[in-house]
Amino acid sequence: MQTHQVTFQPDNVKVVVEPGVTVMEAAQRGGIILNSLCGGAGHCRKCMVEIDGVAQPVAACQYHVEGDLTVTVPENSRFFEQKILEEGISRPGQIQPVVRKYFVRPAKPDLQDLRSDADRLIDTVSTAAGGNMTIAWPLLRQLPQVLRHNDYSVTAICHGESIFALEASDTTDTIFGMAVDVGTTTVVGHLVDLTSGKTTAIASRTNPQISLGEDVISRIDYSRTNPDGLGQLQRLIVDCLNRLIAEVCEKAQLDYRRIYEMTVAGNATMEHLLLGIPVEQIAQAPYVPAVTSAIDVIASELGIDIHPAGNIFVMPGVAGHVGGDTVAVALATAMRHSKEINLALDIGTNGELVLGNKDRLLACSTAAGPAFEGARISHGMRGATGAIERVHINDDVEISVIGGGTPMGICGSGLIDAIAELLNVGIIDYSGKLLTSGKLSEKLGQKLLQRIVEIDGSAAFVLAGDNQAKNGRAVVLTQRDIREAQLAKAAISTGTDILMQQMQIELTDIDRLYLAGAFGNYIRPESARRIGLLPDVPLEKIQFVGNAAAAGAREVLLSRSARGHAVQLAREIEYLELAGRSEFQTLFSENIFFPEK
Amino acid sequence: MQTHQVTFQPDNVKVVVEPGVTVMEAAQRGGIILNSLCGGAGHCRKCMVEIDGVAQPVAACQYHVEGDLTVTVPENSRFFEQKILEEGISRPGQIQPVVRKYFVRPAKPDLQDLRSDADRLIDTVSTAAGGNMTIAWPLLRQLPQVLRHNDYSVTAICHGESIFALEASDTTDTIFGMAVDVGTTTVVGHLVDLTSGKTTAIASRTNPQISLGEDVISRIDYSRTNPDGLGQLQRLIVDCLNRLIAEVCEKAQLDYRRIYEMTVAGNATMEHLLLGIPVEQIAQAPYVPAVTSAIDVIASELGIDIHPAGNIFVMPGVAGHVGGDTVAVALATAMRHSKEINLALDIGTNGELVLGNKDRLLACSTAAGPAFEGARISHGMRGATGAIERVHINDDVEISVIGGGTPMGICGSGLIDAIAELLNVGIIDYSGKLLTSGKLSEKLGQKLLQRIVEIDGSAAFVLAGDNQAKNGRAVVLTQRDIREAQLAKAAISTGTDILMQQMQIELTDIDRLYLAGAFGNYIRPESARRIGLLPDVPLEKIQFVGNAAAAGAREVLLSRSARGHAVQLAREIEYLELAGRSEFQTLFSENIFFPEK
Repeated sequence: MQTHQVTFQPDNVKVVVEPGVTVMEAAQRGGIILNSLCGGAGHCRKCMVEIDGVAQPVAACQYHVEGDLTVTVPENSRFFEQKILEEGISRPGQIQPVVRKYFVRPAKPDLQDLRSDADRLIDTVSTAAGGNMTIAWPLLRQLPQVLRHNDYSVTAICHGESIFALEASDTTDTIFGMAVDVGTTTVVGHLVDLTSGKTTAIASRTNPQISLGEDVISRIDYSRTNPDGLGQLQRLIVDCLNRLIAEVCEKAQLDYRRIYEMTVAGNATMEHLLLGIPVEQIAQAPYVPAVTSAIDVIASELGIDIHPAGNIFVMPGVAGHVGGDTVAVALATAMRHSKEINLALDIGTNGELVLGNKDRLLACSTAAGPAFEGARISHGMRGATGAIERVHINDDVEISVIGGGTPMGICGSGLIDAIAELLNVGIIDYSGKLLTSGKLSEKLGQKLLQRIVEIDGSAAFVLAGDNQAKNGRAVVLTQRDIREAQLAKAAISTGTDILMQQMQIELTDIDRLYLAGAFGNYIRPESARRIGLLPDVPLEKIQFVGNAAAAGAREVLLSRSARGHAVQLAREIEYLELAGRSEFQTLFSENIFFPEK
Repeated sequence: MQTHQVTFQPDNVKVVVEPGVTVMEAAQRGGIILNSLCGGAGHCRKCMVEIDGVAQPVAACQYHVEGDLTVTVPENSRFFEQKILEEGISRPGQIQPVVRKYFVRPAKPDLQDLRSDADRLIDTVSTAAGGNMTIAWPLLRQLPQVLRHNDYSVTAICHGESIFALEASDTTDTIFGMAVDVGTTTVVGHLVDLTSGKTTAIASRTNPQISLGEDVISRIDYSRTNPDGLGQLQRLIVDCLNRLIAEVCEKAQLDYRRIYEMTVAGNATMEHLLLGIPVEQIAQAPYVPAVTSAIDVIASELGIDIHPAGNIFVMPGVAGHVGGDTVAVALATAMRHSKEINLALDIGTNGELVLGNKDRLLACSTAAGPAFEGARISHGMRGATGAIERVHINDDVEISVIGGGTPMGICGSGLIDAIAELLNVGIIDYSGKLLTSGKLSEKLGQKLLQRIVEIDGSAAFVLAGDNQAKNGRAVVLTQRDIREAQLAKAAISTGTDILMQQMQIELTDIDRLYLAGAFGNYIRPESARRIGLLPDVPLEKIQFVGNAAAAGAREVLLSRSARGHAVQLAREIEYLELAGRSEFQTLFSENIFFPEK
């Protein structure tokens, strides 16, 4: 079979692959992990690379190797978590996973040494580990044979103080774990080498629960109104995780039974559903989850296809709407260890906010609604091919479309851009009103004036006319769309305001603003700040942290102390329930307006 | 339907039952538990009672109620364990089970109290229990509903620090557990009320593993030589336990899910088989078990039909041939707390011996062989209907037969009696030789002389002639039978001697000799002492402790501290492997002889 050589620069790593393999896959085989928020679908463009002889940068996940190649990987296409972890609490020297291996050679029994098999194993492992180990019951069922068939030379796999698996001979050089971010929309899994701390393979899939409900609330409804609804939702996510495991194992050529732990970060509803715990009460005031503490479950009890006695660690959460994913974000940003004041923002249908530093951390959740995910917007759509994701207005409108073709609609980042730009040129005033062309004729050029139209008695702005848009259907921003965006941004900024009030700090006290999650990674911070979605802090204080939930899950997989920090964080973060606060409505109605410039 | 009233004296307890119920069953319903070693088969005669108007005492398990009755229950027919426990470490005031219930009323969630369901339950139970409780994952799956459907008034069932089950409203007045002795031959289960400490119902069954092997060694062979042998043996004992549970639940009118813990005592092989742990290595020198420490397993993982999240506690053992049953015996006799020197003997195919006091405990196991169980004896049989169980020799032979009919054979206690009596009258000499009638003609009367016959060139003694025996087949004791008994008793007494040597004590230092197990309960101690099976201690130092293994299992069910003592005992008891000791053969060959009188 024909093969091609791909050389990655500046690493100078050479990988030989069969034709048709993507550049992303080739990079991965060479140990170079590229960003991938869309899971290889080709639209996040976080994996852009330069290929010798190709004029434009290309998405590594879309480019198939059909000959020898030299590929240059820019720093910002490399898997983000290294960026996070540099500023997080997990330093490379601190790899200290909860799951560990010890190669031991217990003495063989004789008349002078009549200890049981369990005791002789426990004694050697306890000496190696420097602690008092115990042995899990199911392992006893294999112990006599494994010891005798391997001449009493075995590798013991331990979780904390418990020996739960054995491998023949010395296998301490490899030990694998899996870190998973279970998002409402997307599930991302990292296969992590617990000896080196490196991610060996990544896979992501759409959360298949979407088929039973687009968002958290609709899934809770589904579980409540269908006899086996909870079971269905649980089976879907377990199946999804098993597919992710199969995928990374395929990539890494690994037997899934060699994965000994999985750590999971998700919002409270996603974590409850995975564990088969009812969620109805999360949707009813006062929105109390069944559990917020960290949960450890044996893999086989959940039906997760790692080693059957392996552990599933589910991140602790704070409240019904501030879950394990938010704790993971706080962990990954190391807020708990910072003297500086940090604000972490994870914006989706709900915005989760954490504010504070090592002395105090406050969190809230605020119902932004789905506007920034394209819902309830006239021509709104998700951030997929055909969505306008960038808007720039000068004397006319310039747009960027995901996938590069003609636009079909507008996604959240495009919406924010469009409103920010229209505010800047004065077509939208501070109250959110889209002015009519008559009032603007003196200030604006003809090209822009022509884009202001009237729809159903209200003003609207044409981002892409019939002749520029897919299927000849114009993409238009209406007055109602702007109102929706105002409600969404007011929810987030009111959350920020109340957290700041509670902490008794001013805007200037915020030293760093972390933007987490896929959405955070797509938006232009200057636009988000312009419309008041982000507070008015200097741009250099804003840091994208990408999929910080997955990064947090990875940290607790790699570090016992990080796991302890996560548990502490979940206890320490004070939760503010905005629904119960009298000042919410007042602040919210003020925040409906856009900042004046 | 017609009913009858049964009045029990001296308790003056009146019970109304339907016709046909046994007196034993009626007593049980009235809270009076009678001894039952044979499980109601009618041959152990430990449940003898007097019935007004009936001339002879009758076995309560065999007498069916067909009219109003007054029954007098003698002290020695009452369930023995009270006798044990009085002298054991569990005093009535010390009922302190590991499984406990707490009725709690956690606050309902509101905006001022946003704790998760788990936290609000844990907080109230922790306050009630005076400890830091945790909650088991599977219970989280029911928690939100149970709290809300019961107006936040629930009874939490805890094992140690873990809340693992909930019941609606306040059910703290009843809590049940099960204590089981898994013997190689018989399995006995006690349903115990953990609030009063009383046994509510007892059931026993033949260990169905007998169908795959009569004794420990043959079952180990079966597990080794059959592909699913271990699985078969495990399923048989699990099924047997489930039948016992069903039986006691039927008697007590109890839902099996209300049983929250089961404690199990058995020898190492029985415990391994129950847990599905391989046993081959127990049969091969140096006879090392897979595990000796106590094991806790969730009931549903073993397939035991108590509450699915209930705990199965398996007694810790000492060595391959000194198992959890011996630890249970040592526990029930409170040897660990005694200043006096105790010797506990459990005689079966193997004899387990524990010697010592609070300062030191030594144990060994010695292969007595199956002679005392009737095997390898010409007319030997188990202690069942038709077996000669008592022999008295005066000018002729008097025998007692189990069930009262004509004899079919002889069981262990009859064999010991016969040899002791024949030694006393001089028909057997100290070397074990059965003398011929010629040598004895001057000393003995005609009736006895006629019983001495010759079979296959050796002397033999007719216990029951053709005309006295079942089916006209005489029951005879041969020279070979005596040799078998000599080997068996020599094994036991050599074990005793070596333990005493090792402890550096004399016979007179032994303050108490405990005889445990069914066999111990049947033999006449003076006969056993006469033949040298028991050491030559005054009869008043000998105490029968009946099924002390079951009593030990009951203690660890009822008392946390007893459970701690069991774990300590298993660690503290020093095991002597006789196979490795040079003095064994010398002592054994001396002990072949009978004591001279």
